[in-house]
Amino acid sequence: MDVTKDNFEKALKEFEAAIAESDFAAIDMEMTGLYESKEHQPSHLDTLDERYAKLKRSVELYGVIQVGICLFTWTANGTGDTGGYYEARPFNFNVFPGSSAGGIAVDTHFGCKSSAFEFLARNAFDFNKWVYQGVPYLRTEDAERIRKERMAMLTSRQRKMDADDRHRGFVRDFELALGAFVESGEQVLRYETGNSYQRKLIHNIVSSHDTLGTRGRSDCIEIFKGSHSAMAKHTAHKIKTLNQNVKHARGFCAVIDMLSAARKPVVGHNMLLDVLHAFSKFYRPLPAGREEFERALAQFLPVLIDTKFIIESTPAIKDRYGTSSLDEIAPMLEREAGCGLAPIRLHPRFMRNATRTMHEAGYDAYMTGASFIRLLKLDGGVSRAAEQSSELVLYRYINKLHLSTAGAKFWAVAS
Amino acid sequence: MDVTKDNFEKALKEFEAAIAESDFAAIDMEMTGLYESKEHQPSHLDTLDERYAKLKRSVELYGVIQVGICLFTWTANGTGDTGGYYEARPFNFNVFPGSSAGGIAVDTHFGCKSSAFEFLARNAFDFNKWVYQGVPYLRTEDAERIRKERMAMLTSRQRKMDADDRHRGFVRDFELALGAFVESGEQVLRYETGNSYQRKLIHNIVSSHDTLGTRGRSDCIEIFKGSHSAMAKHTAHKIKTLNQNVKHARGFCAVIDMLSAARKPVVGHNMLLDVLHAFSKFYRPLPAGREEFERALAQFLPVLIDTKFIIESTPAIKDRYGTSSLDEIAPMLEREAGCGLAPIRLHPRFMRNATRTMHEAGYDAYMTGASFIRLLKLDGGVSRAAEQSSELVLYRYINKLHLSTAGAKFWAVAS
Repeated sequence: MDVTKDNFEKALKEFEAAIAESDFAAIDMEMTGLYESKEHQPSHLDTLDERYAKLKRSVELYGVIQVGICLFTWTANGTGDTGGYYEARPFNFNVFPGSSAGGIAVDTHFGCKSSAFEFLARNAFDFNKWVYQGVPYLRTEDAERIRKERMAMLTSRQRKMDADDRHRGFVRDFELALGAFVESGEQVLRYETGNSYQRKLIHNIVSSHDTLGTRGRSDCIEIFKGSHSAMAKHTAHKIKTLNQNVKHARGFCAVIDMLSAARKPVVGHNMLLDVLHAFSKFYRPLPAGREEFERALAQFLPVLIDTKFIIESTPAIKDRYGTSSLDEIAPMLEREAGCGLAPIRLHPRFMRNATRTMHEAGYDAYMTGASFIRLLKLDGGVSRAAEQSSELVLYRYINKLHLSTAGAKFWAVAS
Repeated sequence: MDVTKDNFEKALKEFEAAIAESDFAAIDMEMTGLYESKEHQPSHLDTLDERYAKLKRSVELYGVIQVGICLFTWTANGTGDTGGYYEARPFNFNVFPGSSAGGIAVDTHFGCKSSAFEFLARNAFDFNKWVYQGVPYLRTEDAERIRKERMAMLTSRQRKMDADDRHRGFVRDFELALGAFVESGEQVLRYETGNSYQRKLIHNIVSSHDTLGTRGRSDCIEIFKGSHSAMAKHTAHKIKTLNQNVKHARGFCAVIDMLSAARKPVVGHNMLLDVLHAFSKFYRPLPAGREEFERALAQFLPVLIDTKFIIESTPAIKDRYGTSSLDEIAPMLEREAGCGLAPIRLHPRFMRNATRTMHEAGYDAYMTGASFIRLLKLDGGVSRAAEQSSELVLYRYINKLHLSTAGAKFWAVAS
């Protein structure tokens, strides 16, 4: 399912229902860049702390433009060698850090690497869909900060603004007009404004009157009279709209909230950067130190499994395929899938528009999850991943993330 | 004329012919962002040095994605009030800092602001055209550095590389095969390689043999025998290809070379950032200090005219239109264009596909140049901009660039 802001609400409901019954989720992301220059690239000499610092720098510098999450559910039907199959529901979320339609604007700076854009272009990436239709996102704490600022403006009487020199005359004229309006029998005063600073001044002046309210119009501001209770109702309505707008602005973060709350295993291939991006962009700012990050990660996504680590740490698999690259090993595993492995089928609603484009995040997430199922079979002969979480074969792999170019080979994030 | 890498060579020839006969050029650019955060934005308290530092930071942080250059040529035909008209040739160059097809790869980091992308999206910008079809660019000094590195590899015998531990066996096997090949009657040895490091090793080893050459193939390297003169010919061919590739990689910089060499007046609207981007992206790195920049700018583009400065410094114009925004004033000036002003016509070859989309750089450059012609008429009554460069009316405006939000109002870049 390809998700843009046009079908996001529908996709969110679908995701919520699917994650509840799924056994595990596979993830993959596309980014605007990896490392700024050679000195920032991982080296086999890095300590874990140094590696964390390098990854943190990359994640804070570059953007995420696509998040693939594929949910896998074991579906028993009593047929075949395995008595069932895995049903896959791949979501391909296009995300762009734009201001939302609800007016909760956060202007985000992100870096890009021309090589990353060229890589995406070689894989037919649609940059227009990204910018024009990407789902916005806003972390809980940023949303909460903005909500509090707006709430304060709505509910408390504001401190009187000091108009700048050029607007002294404007304020004087408006206060005269407002005084006449209050004395008159009129119910509404329409006052024309030339810029947003003038509108801010008017809202500020009117906020000191208990029985006057304001409504922004495209060409003017309407000031209207009302009883105390009518004003309270008016404010309550504005608060409701604000809360809706903040919820809308959180956008894709709601998906990651659900993924985190589900406590299901999350599988990725060479997933360290994906995990850090998910944490930093959609959950919380990355802590300064590695150990603090590990503690927070255990709260955020407690069960991580890296298929690249499975391959690299299992000589029988590494020797058989001679590679641990997803591009190369996933098709080989797929070709061998007939031999007694649980079949993997797309959920019927996810058949339509299913792409088979490598490096589209949704498809890569699907291939990662499918490879995970096939790798476990090769390693230990299991038919249901979720049942294995307490078994030795899977336990060996939990929370050990592959470290590229590192001698240590993996980072035990929850050791 | 909309220019992408597909029609760049043709457009470059067209530009070269047009700039020679033009009277002035108008420019405009679209960028990926302006200022990272509030503290980096211009303030009316800035000294000129502080302002230069802020602009330099913006220019070095953000990218240029479109450069509009419109060339205007006075064409006398003895008719009408003015005895002629201005012929306009607008070029809209889409540029992307990608590695070129010739293998001269420079991986460029650039920042983006989500608000800038949303601004471009509101103006129907095509992000796919930018990435997929943008013309590459490479400054002279970067191109020269890369050319020298490659030349050294082609012409001098290379210092012998020390293969790393894992490749000792590979080197031993290859040297044995090479020895047998040299002794044999064979003319070509095809040697399979597994990665780019192995290919580098082979090129390095073969470079120590005067009468052996290498040719890279997709799946192997060919080593071939030849006389000294055949080898010299082979090297000469490689050098020719290298020079072609470097020229190709310079891409859009060739346009700016021509603009600089032509010494014609360059007109922009609120053009400071455009001028600094042109300098930094397509000419040379920006000097650390403002005064050094001013000296270098006088070499790069000696005659700059900012239409925003003309409007802001001419009360008769500012009062009449009440704005100095190009979006607002250009259409007003256009509507009044009948009254004795020189007509402006598109050159016949530039009629096709002429857009009238505000904030497409080519169209904005056209509107800037057209507004310049109309503003001069309003101010002093002139019919040919180029003839005015020594006259007082135009002299007042040369090299005075509008400073947004600054008390000083303008920066006399060549004072």
